[in-house]
Amino acid sequence: MKNSYTQKEQYYGDYLGLDKVLDAQFPESEARGVDAHDEMLFIIIHQAYELWFKQIMHELDSIINIFQSETINDNSASLQIAVHRTNRIVEIWKLLVAQIDVLETMTPMDFLDFRDLLAPASGFQSVQFRKLETKLGLKMQNRHEKRYYEHQLRPEHVSGIQELEGERSLIQLLEQWLERIPIWGAEYWTDFETPKDADPEVHPFWASYRHTFESGLLSAELAAISMADFDNLLLGKGEKTTRLSPASLQAALFITLYRDYPLMQMPYQLLSKWLEIDELMANWRYRHMSMVRRMIGMRVGTGGSSGANYLKGAMEKHHIFGDVTRITTYLIPRAKLPKLPSILEEKLRFTI
Amino acid sequence: MKNSYTQKEQYYGDYLGLDKVLDAQFPESEARGVDAHDEMLFIIIHQAYELWFKQIMHELDSIINIFQSETINDNSASLQIAVHRTNRIVEIWKLLVAQIDVLETMTPMDFLDFRDLLAPASGFQSVQFRKLETKLGLKMQNRHEKRYYEHQLRPEHVSGIQELEGERSLIQLLEQWLERIPIWGAEYWTDFETPKDADPEVHPFWASYRHTFESGLLSAELAAISMADFDNLLLGKGEKTTRLSPASLQAALFITLYRDYPLMQMPYQLLSKWLEIDELMANWRYRHMSMVRRMIGMRVGTGGSSGANYLKGAMEKHHIFGDVTRITTYLIPRAKLPKLPSILEEKLRFTI
Amino acid sequence: MKNSYTQKEQYYGDYLGLDKVLDAQFPESEARGVDAHDEMLFIIIHQAYELWFKQIMHELDSIINIFQSETINDNSASLQIAVHRTNRIVEIWKLLVAQIDVLETMTPMDFLDFRDLLAPASGFQSVQFRKLETKLGLKMQNRHEKRYYEHQLRPEHVSGIQELEGERSLIQLLEQWLERIPIWGAEYWTDFETPKDADPEVHPFWASYRHTFESGLLSAELAAISMADFDNLLLGKGEKTTRLSPASLQAALFITLYRDYPLMQMPYQLLSKWLEIDELMANWRYRHMSMVRRMIGMRVGTGGSSGANYLKGAMEKHHIFGDVTRITTYLIPRAKLPKLPSILEEKLRFTI
Amino acid sequence: MKNSYTQKEQYYGDYLGLDKVLDAQFPESEARGVDAHDEMLFIIIHQAYELWFKQIMHELDSIINIFQSETINDNSASLQIAVHRTNRIVEIWKLLVAQIDVLETMTPMDFLDFRDLLAPASGFQSVQFRKLETKLGLKMQNRHEKRYYEHQLRPEHVSGIQELEGERSLIQLLEQWLERIPIWGAEYWTDFETPKDADPEVHPFWASYRHTFESGLLSAELAAISMADFDNLLLGKGEKTTRLSPASLQAALFITLYRDYPLMQMPYQLLSKWLEIDELMANWRYRHMSMVRRMIGMRVGTGGSSGANYLKGAMEKHHIFGDVTRITTYLIPRAKLPKLPSILEEKLRFTI
Repeated sequence: MKNSYTQKEQYYGDYLGLDKVLDAQFPESEARGVDAHDEMLFIIIHQAYELWFKQIMHELDSIINIFQSETINDNSASLQIAVHRTNRIVEIWKLLVAQIDVLETMTPMDFLDFRDLLAPASGFQSVQFRKLETKLGLKMQNRHEKRYYEHQLRPEHVSGIQELEGERSLIQLLEQWLERIPIWGAEYWTDFETPKDADPEVHPFWASYRHTFESGLLSAELAAISMADFDNLLLGKGEKTTRLSPASLQAALFITLYRDYPLMQMPYQLLSKWLEIDELMANWRYRHMSMVRRMIGMRVGTGGSSGANYLKGAMEKHHIFGDVTRITTYLIPRAKLPKLPSILEEKLRFTI
Repeated sequence: MKNSYTQKEQYYGDYLGLDKVLDAQFPESEARGVDAHDEMLFIIIHQAYELWFKQIMHELDSIINIFQSETINDNSASLQIAVHRTNRIVEIWKLLVAQIDVLETMTPMDFLDFRDLLAPASGFQSVQFRKLETKLGLKMQNRHEKRYYEHQLRPEHVSGIQELEGERSLIQLLEQWLERIPIWGAEYWTDFETPKDADPEVHPFWASYRHTFESGLLSAELAAISMADFDNLLLGKGEKTTRLSPASLQAALFITLYRDYPLMQMPYQLLSKWLEIDELMANWRYRHMSMVRRMIGMRVGTGGSSGANYLKGAMEKHHIFGDVTRITTYLIPRAKLPKLPSILEEKLRFTI
Repeated sequence: MKNSYTQKEQYYGDYLGLDKVLDAQFPESEARGVDAHDEMLFIIIHQAYELWFKQIMHELDSIINIFQSETINDNSASLQIAVHRTNRIVEIWKLLVAQIDVLETMTPMDFLDFRDLLAPASGFQSVQFRKLETKLGLKMQNRHEKRYYEHQLRPEHVSGIQELEGERSLIQLLEQWLERIPIWGAEYWTDFETPKDADPEVHPFWASYRHTFESGLLSAELAAISMADFDNLLLGKGEKTTRLSPASLQAALFITLYRDYPLMQMPYQLLSKWLEIDELMANWRYRHMSMVRRMIGMRVGTGGSSGANYLKGAMEKHHIFGDVTRITTYLIPRAKLPKLPSILEEKLRFTI
Repeated sequence: MKNSYTQKEQYYGDYLGLDKVLDAQFPESEARGVDAHDEMLFIIIHQAYELWFKQIMHELDSIINIFQSETINDNSASLQIAVHRTNRIVEIWKLLVAQIDVLETMTPMDFLDFRDLLAPASGFQSVQFRKLETKLGLKMQNRHEKRYYEHQLRPEHVSGIQELEGERSLIQLLEQWLERIPIWGAEYWTDFETPKDADPEVHPFWASYRHTFESGLLSAELAAISMADFDNLLLGKGEKTTRLSPASLQAALFITLYRDYPLMQMPYQLLSKWLEIDELMANWRYRHMSMVRRMIGMRVGTGGSSGANYLKGAMEKHHIFGDVTRITTYLIPRAKLPKLPSILEEKLRFTI
């Protein structure tokens, strides 16, 4: 195999396709003889964003691929690989937030030099970003002001996104994986004390947990925290107000509470990092919005959107993991956690 | 003078008062025999925030001091010193935003270990931060949910803040400084062409500018951009909707438009950096809010506030320089700017 | 327990000891009636550094405490807690590097306003930082230009550091922990194929690994990579050139190679994060050096050190985990890794 | 003109040339059927670096263009535009340093999966980066281990770089601009007190300055600071040890000392920012070196270089503005600065 390496001598620029990458900047101002030095920055920063979106997709696809398998278990390398790559997405998003600092060196006056030449192009039309959101689990119907997408994207791009909606998204796959958490079987819970008057349809752990949580609330908190919401969220009572199933949220809460056990470590890291990505994407939208507001004030976006206002709406509605954040309300202090049955404890550990 | 240095031998720890600074961490959990490793982080990060608030105040006080003088002119070192120190505040705020990354290493479960021990203490009670906001120009009456402040701060702290409200804030001083911009005198504008039918009460520059702006709007923008708002903002017509005076906003807009002239450079940098601080403080509040949401969900804050929801309100309402951001809407491209009279141009330049 | 909370009403400023922390800034320039606005920044940033050093110590002590126990096993929460807190130290160091950006807003001229007043105080005298380095494993005798420390620190501080040298440092504890890796027992390796002519004193795994590594080298690499160094590093042949034992480095390499197994995950993260801290501390020293060079040029430091040159030396010599970095040379591609015996594989996994 | 916009409807992806940019990633591992997930990251991050290098060149070219004009004066917009664009280069370099955090998510083992497939391509072959260094002022003959460049770059690339060496570099242009500082004329200095016994060939200002500096040195500093170096650096006595001329370094020092005057402001900001870029590029090389050391240990780089060792050398030798950093040694405190003649002072100010 060693010999094969010498068959093709790699050269940096060829290997990286720089003939394409560095020959893809065509400022519209130049084509029209308008003087607008900063359009190059505008082009290059968006190209850099798109390159990174491609990289995020590369990682996300591999993670989705891992969770698509029904046989994923905690003993394969799969889970830690998923954690590792999710962490890379975290780092990329931090970079994408930092990248805004560079764009902010463009002043509103400098942007005006070429802004009108771009119309009606707009960030709405970033097909990669739309697909990224879709793969994470954002549906067209849940988007803020979805008409913008429908009007501005080319029909083939809209249909490409709709097709993706038919596939299982990351959030769906994680939901299913959480639902498979292998700890609820009666065989593990024989020596767990069931609370008196416990609802027989509720797993003894949750019956116990609910009781501990409610009785531990401070008086000041009683008004703000709703046990009905607890029941809805985790026990599935009442009309569904979550995207994720109660069973998956139970698992997410269990993992958070008992992350000290070895078996819970990787699942805990995975969930934490996805929450972090959700937060980073929201922060990116927020900084983007602030920048747009500073850049164009109340003008409409180049694509006809309401600019900053649109982004504000998106920031609120495009969270993917809001349900998981919501369970934080129902944590109880470590010292009060129900002690797990020893049969189960064994399973959560290594044997060496 | 050299000899005097040897009269007192400085030692690092004494010079820095480390006996005080490093002996000021008393975790409540320790006092009560509760195991809560992360309380130390909680204490130290807040102490670090407070140290930096003190530093920001040190810079802000010196800037306020500069602008309190009626005689500030562009030829003293004052203006560039103000710019330099404002820039330092920018860098400090970047650090304070980055500091949240450290706090986010505390998980919700780890916070629960000691959270209840802190009640009813809360970030509302940061007297320095309240004073900082006051000095910038935020009035108690304009605060989001001001009752929290009144209920939670000690009476002497409330009255200290109220007293500060009686002094001229940074935003007021900047307003007055902007109003003094020495360019509107008739002697500079004799050879400036006044538009036909111009309102005689409006300075010829603004009459001309308004016309150019309106006629340059794209059809798509006409619906979104209101000329009535222009008149209100810059010409003072109709009921006042701004905190700042039309005269000061005129100056801010003029500086932004003609920043290429040497005399406009420092004023432009000053304004830009204050807008950046406004944005950084908003982003800090935003990230703070996200973190609180992730940390305590829908629980109330330790001080009884609605936690994340409070912060969201504050984020929206506590902008100081919103009026200046608003003028961005009314920029026109450099190529269409009214040409300044040559008599004025001379004044905007050096003579060497 | 709930009632007890109301017995003592916490107030933010009292809880944080702000009367001490915010009353510990006494610029020497002020005492002498010299005008030096930036001395406050100089004081406060160093106080912030010291606060964070205290926090790092708090984390480090708890990690050292975990590894001091002989009974640490991968099934307790201990290991993941150590990883989590090590990660916090990573985040704090990132912040401390970023903090230099704030100090760089002080120009050389502004520093000169008060620099002479500080002599002979100097960063050498940061007792906390010296102790931190000592706890990590840096001995006085291995310090670059150790005479500075001896001359400048007060005797009681020197002896405090020397005393610490008598205790087991983090690097020693990690070495011992690595040496205990429970996988070399003959019972796990019965079905592992021993290479022909293997040195009977070398564990069959390493005999096999060494062979695979050597035969896989590219011709270009053969000149640069020394198998004698391999033997020295990992098999303990020849005179010792490492701080860490061959057995511990074997474990570190094994963990790196087989991190895909669940049991290797936390150990791998732990090692990676300590390498990252080593790198961050070196980068902090590097940026510190660049800043000093820009600030004082070739002048001596306030404490009489050669300023930037000293820091350059320290940057090179004060690495703690250099040996672990060195094993990177001897990694082989995943596809060529010796397959582990199935008996051992079982032990590296969960049973659920 | 408004109608013309509708003649060509811009679409985001077309405008940004995404068909090229996103179709330029061809992992060699994929072509050979080798499994190496992380090669995509390796490709994309280098493409992102190259995009940003192109942007830096775009800014640098425009700055070089400004300084190529003999007629640049402080009254045109040119100088502030140069400052503004230099500042953008600062922000881009900050991003490029931060980008290393993303690359560090690739572990040494993951790199090994495809490392050998890249040989002998190497970062040496980045033609853009070589040209960037050349435009700044780095000559081939001053490069660390210049043979690498000559051996590894294609002949047409070497000759392209050599051709660039024939043009005036940024550092040369800045030198010439500094030499033109319009303040030394006798007409400005008539009422400046010339020190007794002053060397008649030395401008009275420098005679006075030299005296003040030398007599203000602390005893501790006398050994470390060489007045002979002062004479060499600023008065051009002895054999030249600087890249820049004494006249230009005099100007740089004057600007640093008297930056409080309006006329000195933009020049001061310009110099400061170029020093910052020098430092950022050095820090980028430093972090790059640390990363390479962690990634490949003592192996040779893919292009046959000594990897980390090469980068260490480059870090030391490739500074462009070392001479300007060197003058910092010779600053004197503001309070002791020679008072400028009032005729000159007038010229350093605005007249309004």
